[in-house]
Amino acid sequence: MRVGPLKLKIQLICGDEIAMGPGKADVLEAIDREGSISAAGRALGMSYRRTWLLVDEMNRCFSEKVVETHQGGRHDRGAELTEPGRAVLAAYRALEKQAGRIARSPENSQLAAALRDQPLPAKSDV
Amino acid sequence: MRVGPLKLKIQLICGDEIAMGPGKADVLEAIDREGSISAAGRALGMSYRRTWLLVDEMNRCFSEKVVETHQGGRHDRGAELTEPGRAVLAAYRALEKQAGRIARSPENSQLAAALRDQPLPAKSDV
Repeated sequence: MRVGPLKLKIQLICGDEIAMGPGKADVLEAIDREGSISAAGRALGMSYRRTWLLVDEMNRCFSEKVVETHQGGRHDRGAELTEPGRAVLAAYRALEKQAGRIARSPENSQLAAALRDQPLPAKSDV
Repeated sequence: MRVGPLKLKIQLICGDEIAMGPGKADVLEAIDREGSISAAGRALGMSYRRTWLLVDEMNRCFSEKVVETHQGGRHDRGAELTEPGRAVLAAYRALEKQAGRIARSPENSQLAAALRDQPLPAKSDV
């Protein structure tokens, strides 16, 4: 998430994989809204394969599946968040909101004030 | 920074560049400790060129230089944090500390409890 010059990224790690992060949270929201993995991918400008891989990674990292896909058909067969999936998404967004509070800290104001509007050009660009 | 399964990354953006982030904060600390860009790079396992580029990016993004290099000689001529550089580093570490508090939030405990110790194997690995 971005608040002025401040960029915050929260990830949950499981072994060598990323169980949850900004992209995966967006995928969960899109599936909830669109009703299938393929439609969620289209809405986010991602390939079906990439979207499916993110869903699979989440489902393998959490004790309970976060996305349930319906059987039958192929890409458009439909998918929905499970109750645990809904809880994971809500908790992740709550963490982001908490992290966003540091945007209102004096240290962040101090850093933002010390920044130029644009960086000076690199020597090689001159 | 990493707290259990939680991974937090804070960056300060200036135009298209990253003015400050975890790697750059480590570079500032290493320069303060080692007294030169080359020694800081060695301590962090980074090339002189890479370390210099990170320093240059910071110096171009902040209104006042964060690192001052001494004239004469070549790579080992010495470098030190300026007072503004020291303030930037301290403020960034303070932001990280504030962000780290979300590790103690109930939502983080809830997410951590929902994770497996290790992800299930991907289908292609089975």
